[in-house]
Amino acid sequence: MHIEALADSRSSSELGQQLHLFAADLYPICRSITGNGIRRTLDKIGERISLKISEVPTGTQVFDWTVPKEWNIRDAYVKGASGKRVIDFARSSLHVLNYSMPVHATMPLAMLKPHLFTLPEHPDWVPYRTSYYKEEWGFCLSHNEMLALEEGDYEIFIDSTLEPGHLTYGECFLHGRSSDEVLISSHICHPSLANDNLSGLSVATFLAQLLSERDLRYSYRFLFIPGTIGAITWLARNQQATERIRHGLVLAGVGDAGAFHYKKSRRGDAEIDRVATYVLNEGRGSAEILDFSPYGYDERQYCSPGFNLPVGCLMRSVWGTFPEYHTSADNLDFINPQQLEESLRVCGAIVDILEGNQRYCNLSPFGEPQLGKRGLYRSTGGNKIGVEIDARLWVLNFSDGAHSLLDIAERSGIPFAAIRDAARLLCDKGLLSVAQD
Amino acid sequence: MHIEALADSRSSSELGQQLHLFAADLYPICRSITGNGIRRTLDKIGERISLKISEVPTGTQVFDWTVPKEWNIRDAYVKGASGKRVIDFARSSLHVLNYSMPVHATMPLAMLKPHLFTLPEHPDWVPYRTSYYKEEWGFCLSHNEMLALEEGDYEIFIDSTLEPGHLTYGECFLHGRSSDEVLISSHICHPSLANDNLSGLSVATFLAQLLSERDLRYSYRFLFIPGTIGAITWLARNQQATERIRHGLVLAGVGDAGAFHYKKSRRGDAEIDRVATYVLNEGRGSAEILDFSPYGYDERQYCSPGFNLPVGCLMRSVWGTFPEYHTSADNLDFINPQQLEESLRVCGAIVDILEGNQRYCNLSPFGEPQLGKRGLYRSTGGNKIGVEIDARLWVLNFSDGAHSLLDIAERSGIPFAAIRDAARLLCDKGLLSVAQD
Amino acid sequence: MHIEALADSRSSSELGQQLHLFAADLYPICRSITGNGIRRTLDKIGERISLKISEVPTGTQVFDWTVPKEWNIRDAYVKGASGKRVIDFARSSLHVLNYSMPVHATMPLAMLKPHLFTLPEHPDWVPYRTSYYKEEWGFCLSHNEMLALEEGDYEIFIDSTLEPGHLTYGECFLHGRSSDEVLISSHICHPSLANDNLSGLSVATFLAQLLSERDLRYSYRFLFIPGTIGAITWLARNQQATERIRHGLVLAGVGDAGAFHYKKSRRGDAEIDRVATYVLNEGRGSAEILDFSPYGYDERQYCSPGFNLPVGCLMRSVWGTFPEYHTSADNLDFINPQQLEESLRVCGAIVDILEGNQRYCNLSPFGEPQLGKRGLYRSTGGNKIGVEIDARLWVLNFSDGAHSLLDIAERSGIPFAAIRDAARLLCDKGLLSVAQD
Repeated sequence: MHIEALADSRSSSELGQQLHLFAADLYPICRSITGNGIRRTLDKIGERISLKISEVPTGTQVFDWTVPKEWNIRDAYVKGASGKRVIDFARSSLHVLNYSMPVHATMPLAMLKPHLFTLPEHPDWVPYRTSYYKEEWGFCLSHNEMLALEEGDYEIFIDSTLEPGHLTYGECFLHGRSSDEVLISSHICHPSLANDNLSGLSVATFLAQLLSERDLRYSYRFLFIPGTIGAITWLARNQQATERIRHGLVLAGVGDAGAFHYKKSRRGDAEIDRVATYVLNEGRGSAEILDFSPYGYDERQYCSPGFNLPVGCLMRSVWGTFPEYHTSADNLDFINPQQLEESLRVCGAIVDILEGNQRYCNLSPFGEPQLGKRGLYRSTGGNKIGVEIDARLWVLNFSDGAHSLLDIAERSGIPFAAIRDAARLLCDKGLLSVAQD
Repeated sequence: MHIEALADSRSSSELGQQLHLFAADLYPICRSITGNGIRRTLDKIGERISLKISEVPTGTQVFDWTVPKEWNIRDAYVKGASGKRVIDFARSSLHVLNYSMPVHATMPLAMLKPHLFTLPEHPDWVPYRTSYYKEEWGFCLSHNEMLALEEGDYEIFIDSTLEPGHLTYGECFLHGRSSDEVLISSHICHPSLANDNLSGLSVATFLAQLLSERDLRYSYRFLFIPGTIGAITWLARNQQATERIRHGLVLAGVGDAGAFHYKKSRRGDAEIDRVATYVLNEGRGSAEILDFSPYGYDERQYCSPGFNLPVGCLMRSVWGTFPEYHTSADNLDFINPQQLEESLRVCGAIVDILEGNQRYCNLSPFGEPQLGKRGLYRSTGGNKIGVEIDARLWVLNFSDGAHSLLDIAERSGIPFAAIRDAARLLCDKGLLSVAQD
Repeated sequence: MHIEALADSRSSSELGQQLHLFAADLYPICRSITGNGIRRTLDKIGERISLKISEVPTGTQVFDWTVPKEWNIRDAYVKGASGKRVIDFARSSLHVLNYSMPVHATMPLAMLKPHLFTLPEHPDWVPYRTSYYKEEWGFCLSHNEMLALEEGDYEIFIDSTLEPGHLTYGECFLHGRSSDEVLISSHICHPSLANDNLSGLSVATFLAQLLSERDLRYSYRFLFIPGTIGAITWLARNQQATERIRHGLVLAGVGDAGAFHYKKSRRGDAEIDRVATYVLNEGRGSAEILDFSPYGYDERQYCSPGFNLPVGCLMRSVWGTFPEYHTSADNLDFINPQQLEESLRVCGAIVDILEGNQRYCNLSPFGEPQLGKRGLYRSTGGNKIGVEIDARLWVLNFSDGAHSLLDIAERSGIPFAAIRDAARLLCDKGLLSVAQD
């Protein structure tokens, strides 16, 4: 089970290109926390991996929340006196305040202005704004475009519906040898924003595709859900199932050029925290490990105190820390094939260690076993031993049922793969067995 | 309950002036571990706060110690051949070896000299010396004064009594909602020394005065006691009561210009240790936190292994580390109004956190509760959240009954006051309740 | 029980000279893991300390290993065409591959060469090589000597026997007041190598000699054993006895000029780890403390997971890190009297702390006991206390049955000896008693 090796066997640039093409294919769709944009997005994911779609009716109580009305939009514009569209939803899904109620009216600029959202500090970018839980309408546009609007009357049209319907999400479940689960969660509710989070859902889709070809120790559950309300809805409907989650990752913002960031689970010392830290520290020098905080992506929900699941969050640049965040500048140029692919490889390396990180028992624990008679040692004494023999000695000495292979790798400074290979060889030679939990 | 805010509401310089005036009023009194100097000092404290005075008879066994004879002194001098007083107790209470037995004799300088104490390294200062447990007599004077003494006979007169009597101490008890206690202890046995410890007893007196106006979570016990023997006597007579002490502070040497020092309790990780560290690290950059050591002030007794109480010690300069320590240079110029007031504010801030540092339970712990519908969130999504919302998320996420508000403040980096305000608001909104112990 | 003091009472240079002379006496003997070289070495140790010799028959199963055939050698050489010995065992025991099977043959240089071992990077040194568990023969020589060998036939003669016999080891047991044991182990299987490990066995021998004159708290077991197979053999025959081992040290490579290194036990926090660290950090600034690793000397066996004994390893330079390691350059000039003696002193200081490092109970734990009435305090108050009084306060405050004297020494920064002296004095005064386990 070497996800990383598997990824290597394809042309690298090809894999990155495919990730970027997939993101590009999804980019124009106007997604929100409910509606047909989500459904179309899940359809495209479902062309690549086996996806179970859930539809949860408006009004359903999910813990402290209620599933909202379903929002759909066909068109939206602001027309000036000349009849020309000065703001046009057809040009970008960002131009409408997400979840705008329907409106059709004519009004002077002064009345329109409170409904316009801009970014004065980046006058050419369009901001991304939402109003899910307060009935409102509005348009987002660049600050320069707004400054160019002349006094006079404007025709306002938002051809949306906000009606009882459903909240939609998708799940891909891969059966492993154990019913213990690894959760991989990506939010899919943002409209035309590339890094946040077409990057995360693309990497998750490809990871699921790669894992579906493998014999797996753990079962894997991939969630493609609307942010916040989607995670809460899934948790409310699967409260029992959360007890099987042993490790989890939220994937978000993994396509940009920033250094990797891993935000630890609320527990702070979960195995996923150690594994992700280990992977990011191995030759990815500028990566940063962040302590848990309750603001962020859907780890907020998985790590709420009632659940406190061992779920961390893998990002490149951190939300809110880069100017392109939640603006039209988070576009397909802001992410690139190579960065997407590297993120997929990091996920693969994390999975690889989770799969292999078992504890073993030395079956010959009194003194060292005689490796020489099994062909596992040098025959002429007096000169140095190599890293292979050293790895065997480390695995034998610390395989007391309490130390995992990652413990041994960290303590010895020997790469995890070499430690795992030593453990397999010693198992084959009858000197080691997997520890029972 | 904002002691600090309360203090702010008075004129700052006025509060400091009052502290200094109170110290100045007490300065001339010749205190010792027993006697009328103590009683007069307690009388003056009792004019400001409600004080219960205890008188413990000479000879009372208190653990390994015995309450000593009571010492009182009216006059003392050394007269030269001319009949002029060359050393005169009336000029400073330091001039007599504290606890000197009565003596009236004439003797040549050579016989007198072994009874004279000076400080050659500070030839103009008078040292403070005591002989509580060995019957002795003597005088303290500046080294230059001693060098000026001519050969010849001197009349020695110490008009003291050392007789069965009492050891006296005072207690101010403030009832809180809980019978759990906070102990504030100051030694009051030093004669005309300003920093050690008129500063500590003045700050303690004013703190008690401020707290007596408040609705308090904890009960507060202020002890005004002779050092060592007084603390041991109080402990011996209140062994059961010590079980109610949850937090404690010894206040000593808090008027000089040095940086703050907090010496941790023997436990090292008591809540008072964390609170005092937090307060001193918040914008008082040069403060130092010291590990416990068994030499020092009365924390020696509270932290003896049989009690091991959570009692630390707040000082500015540390005993024995400044040249003025235990000399006549520790006078009213060595302390000043502003420094006394700052020490009182630090005490207030510590009390403020102790009072507010509770643990809470999130009543909606599965996923985040929907803050928006309660007016606790922004309504337009996509832009940044402020520190108020952030504080609410931190309090909700970590209010699992195990984390205190100080835990949350430290972990989040958000000021304690903002965290406490968030907790109160969330309680008001029905999302949080105080955790039961 | 001051081993260090005892050592001081002899002439320093004399003690170092004796250590070096003893090593020099043993140097020429051709030792191996079995055979008469071991027996002669143990005989010479037995002239200095009481030694029990064990003989374990070839073929005995010891855990995963089997005691090998016994090897003895009388002579070995390679003769050139001229009849001159070009390689001669009589010149150095290193010239023969240790455990070479007997051989007598004539062969051309080309056939001989695969049986010759040299060190091209140090062309004048002879390497030390062994082949214990693969039947083989060979010679070791300097690279320059090999290059000088001319083409032609050579007579090869190794007059060795490899036959059923015994594995031999020696034990010196010193009875202490407790049956709890301290284990000191040195390997004695290397032929003419001075630092590895005539240094270790000499220091161990002298330490046993010094300790045999003392009243001891612990019992001490000194093992003089062949490396690896000897340690495993001893462990297999004394599995029960290992439960009495409270502390242990492997001594190896303690005669060279390098800085001290202490390699911690597998536990990492054993008392021996703390004691050795403390001793090496006290005024031996360049010493280094190493974490446990499963490669090294016989701590590999004592710290195998089935035993996990609290046994560390004291060295100067670490095996394999200096060029002279396992070569003819590890000769009597590579070790010197002063370094051997310093190593013995370090061992003495470690033993000294192990012997004295008890936990005590303060018999007057409520407040401080009144030291003054017992003559343990200054009588005039007001000036500083010295380190002796400070040590008493530290011992009294932390003698709660949980803190050892080493805990107190480390926490206070007061030297262990002063802490121990304070504890003894307080015991004499009835204020302290040894804590029961």
